[in-house]
Amino acid sequence: MNTWFKISENSDFTIYNIPFGIFSTPTLEKRVGIAIGESVLDLTIAFELGLFRSLNISKTVFESNFLNDFISLGKSVTNKVRTIIQEELCTNNSVLKTSKEAFIHQNEVEMHLPVKIGDYTDFYSSIEHATNVGMMFRDPENALLPNWKHIPVGYHGRASSIMVSGKNIYRPKGQVLKPNETSPVFQPSARVDFELEMGFIIGKQTEVGDSVSIEKAEEYIFGKVLFNDWSARDIQKWEYVPLGPFLAKNFASSMSPWVVTMEALEPFRVSGPVQNPKVLTHLEYSGLKNFDINLEVLIAPNEKDETVVSKSNFKYMYWNMSQQLAHHTSNGCNLNVGDLMASGTISGKNKDSYGSMLELSWGGKNTVKLNNGENRKFIEDYDTVIMRGYCEKDEIRVGFGEVRAQILPSK
Amino acid sequence: MNTWFKISENSDFTIYNIPFGIFSTPTLEKRVGIAIGESVLDLTIAFELGLFRSLNISKTVFESNFLNDFISLGKSVTNKVRTIIQEELCTNNSVLKTSKEAFIHQNEVEMHLPVKIGDYTDFYSSIEHATNVGMMFRDPENALLPNWKHIPVGYHGRASSIMVSGKNIYRPKGQVLKPNETSPVFQPSARVDFELEMGFIIGKQTEVGDSVSIEKAEEYIFGKVLFNDWSARDIQKWEYVPLGPFLAKNFASSMSPWVVTMEALEPFRVSGPVQNPKVLTHLEYSGLKNFDINLEVLIAPNEKDETVVSKSNFKYMYWNMSQQLAHHTSNGCNLNVGDLMASGTISGKNKDSYGSMLELSWGGKNTVKLNNGENRKFIEDYDTVIMRGYCEKDEIRVGFGEVRAQILPSK
Repeated sequence: MNTWFKISENSDFTIYNIPFGIFSTPTLEKRVGIAIGESVLDLTIAFELGLFRSLNISKTVFESNFLNDFISLGKSVTNKVRTIIQEELCTNNSVLKTSKEAFIHQNEVEMHLPVKIGDYTDFYSSIEHATNVGMMFRDPENALLPNWKHIPVGYHGRASSIMVSGKNIYRPKGQVLKPNETSPVFQPSARVDFELEMGFIIGKQTEVGDSVSIEKAEEYIFGKVLFNDWSARDIQKWEYVPLGPFLAKNFASSMSPWVVTMEALEPFRVSGPVQNPKVLTHLEYSGLKNFDINLEVLIAPNEKDETVVSKSNFKYMYWNMSQQLAHHTSNGCNLNVGDLMASGTISGKNKDSYGSMLELSWGGKNTVKLNNGENRKFIEDYDTVIMRGYCEKDEIRVGFGEVRAQILPSK
Repeated sequence: MNTWFKISENSDFTIYNIPFGIFSTPTLEKRVGIAIGESVLDLTIAFELGLFRSLNISKTVFESNFLNDFISLGKSVTNKVRTIIQEELCTNNSVLKTSKEAFIHQNEVEMHLPVKIGDYTDFYSSIEHATNVGMMFRDPENALLPNWKHIPVGYHGRASSIMVSGKNIYRPKGQVLKPNETSPVFQPSARVDFELEMGFIIGKQTEVGDSVSIEKAEEYIFGKVLFNDWSARDIQKWEYVPLGPFLAKNFASSMSPWVVTMEALEPFRVSGPVQNPKVLTHLEYSGLKNFDINLEVLIAPNEKDETVVSKSNFKYMYWNMSQQLAHHTSNGCNLNVGDLMASGTISGKNKDSYGSMLELSWGGKNTVKLNNGENRKFIEDYDTVIMRGYCEKDEIRVGFGEVRAQILPSK
């Protein structure tokens, strides 16, 4: 595709991408936009210019605080909105080309949480991450629990504290059991950590009692975001048996503002790891269900001197999104548009591809060196953690932008 | 208080109660009502009659699908609405007395989920229940885990599948590991269970990073409901280590339609169990924070022949609601109006006061006899489970009505 819109070579937001998000400016209330190059295209203006006349949709889906109403139109409509924009951006006599209001520089907008999240589920689907954690906390010889290769293990997280990239995070306080003690103390967490994850957003509702087959699972996925599942390892260690992580996780999660559609990711399908033992029938899949998405994590103390501390890839996931969604609904649990399902920490095989400080510092035994000469075992106050992700193949690039947040001292 | 409204002696919905809910009729869309005797008082009509003129509120908070907007007015307003209704029902020349539209018999209304639940948290705060489960699944000598007496253990549940009383439940399917096997099978759960719980509804928002002190915790609680946290024990056993229950719980939960306010429960405060060891400062409380609420569970096969299978009481709770809420926000996790926090299974000391079939049948070893001659270890298809609850003291009775649901075969 050749567009008349000026897009720099390394942009995440190419003509092949067209991700959706919610933005505002000092003069415009929250509304739906797409990212293109360094700009945001205001879809309310695109609507007013008549671009979506053939679709029989209401302007109100674009003048909204969240993408939920837009997503609820269904893929048959939202895909057409995306391809119409692509076509207009490649048509020399497009009305967009002469519209002064349609494009706003990304520096001039504020981005917001793209969806109203009903329920948030976090999986634990990287075999490298689960193995690393099992080796540290349980038995190095039997790092994976017996159920791990049979079910994409997951749990429910807190939706209220999921924030858009750029919102800062207060260091959580909590109960911690110090070594050789039997009673806990209450203090600011000394082991705040990131988890490099990706999330997918549910695009289609189901009813209670219904299950989604693995063949149809992708029909229920609108698109993907970068996700930082902030964790407090010392709080987690004391609280998580037997009902799982709670206050160690629910103080904050950060997500990127642009939702990249499944259609934009189509060229980047790859095969996943061999699953042995064979999974049960309802989790068996065919075709390419993993995606080659380059990921990296950076730490910037005081927002300066970014250091890459991890380079990973979404293609490493043992359990793919279709399996996660089929599992989630296999018991009849219902889904709503805007629900979020996150991957769990995405670690690779090599030590420089681990997706958390827990793994990079191996439980605090090692240090991670930063470019400014400092060392880190976990995340310190005023550190900014940045995650970036992009796909690249045959000169087509589709990126996610970034999710970033700075850790502030406890309130 | 003496009311002119005719209320039978054993009614849950006395003049002292005045609980809020959402109802509809074939001719009226969803709206806010209060339960009084065998009737529902339509608060939209009460508004139109001018009863709330002094409060400067909008009629739209009553013409709503959920109580959230009403609750968001704050206790200073919602308490006044409640006391105004009480006064009118005790005033002989009240306009309500001559309004033909204001009261509708409860047989003629459909009740709906009272709140739009943002996040749902389930605690595990009955020491009797936690001990029973620990004895069955872990070590009878060390039934309670080391953290149990230091933190009100809790986890996040699924909000989407919480349904109002009367909605039937499909038996969940899921992975189960059979005895002496190493690989699971996928089948309908053979161990569907109820959990006798109560839930409280958040009435006041907090911001990310803020904590609510234990002294102020009750200001954030609007009211309480009965709650059945349906569970599939065989699915739970296979999936729950290490991240907690997931598909074993998220197929369905049932709640009672009438929210009983904290103010209505005021007369029924009692002291809680002694907490030894002493809890950390942020969880230390003074005063009476437990509530004497009689609870019972009944099973009715094919909706006939109710058998009481458990009689318990909310006063047994080791951790009280103020401690749960202070703990939940101690890390800065934010709350929204309409969030639900449930108690966990409410078991008493005696075998006939256990709050789940898991405990009543001691993991399926014993049977529970029903009035129709049948036995149960767990819940069978077409069984209806009913939970009821009420407070009584000095001839004042305040009740919760019931939560009921029938189990249907898997879809």
